[in-house]
Amino acid sequence: MTDLETSMGTIIAVFQKYSEREGDKHKLKKSELKDLLQDELPELMEHVKDQEALDKLMEGLDTDGDSECDFQEFMTFIAMVTVFCHEFFQQEDE
Amino acid sequence: MTDLETSMGTIIAVFQKYSEREGDKHKLKKSELKDLLQDELPELMEHVKDQEALDKLMEGLDTDGDSECDFQEFMTFIAMVTVFCHEFFQQEDE
Repeated sequence: MTDLETSMGTIIAVFQKYSEREGDKHKLKKSELKDLLQDELPELMEHVKDQEALDKLMEGLDTDGDSECDFQEFMTFIAMVTVFCHEFFQQEDE
Repeated sequence: MTDLETSMGTIIAVFQKYSEREGDKHKLKKSELKDLLQDELPELMEHVKDQEALDKLMEGLDTDGDSECDFQEFMTFIAMVTVFCHEFFQQEDE
């Protein structure tokens, strides 16, 4: 596998590691999402410190309104964060 | 860095490796995109064999119509392919 293929596989594996814990194994409930973000994106989570901010993040992620985060919603979020990081590094570079 | 953070960094690094080669260093021109897909996503490219298919893929990616692929467009594509892979593995699993 190439590095890019491995990275895509890692994103899927990280989602599954948390979504499988409880309830619907293909979706992240709020507690699973919170654990995932805290353990896997600790730098980002420094900006999401209180429950209200987490609720807002979850609301933004949950585009179909079922109070859970499916893989498509999760991937959209990861894409958004990655685009943000890319812009940040690009600005640093210029 | 966690595995998830490393994966997001890899996606950015792979894009830059190709976008920096010629012209606008923050965008992939068609030849750069072609090289990236062939070298970094070889399994996917087995399904994009002819020039017409590549033109269609590029057209689909290039949402702002400037004939180049910026990072946001690239990330949207990677997200789409990853969601597709996830669905494929989920079906295999059931």
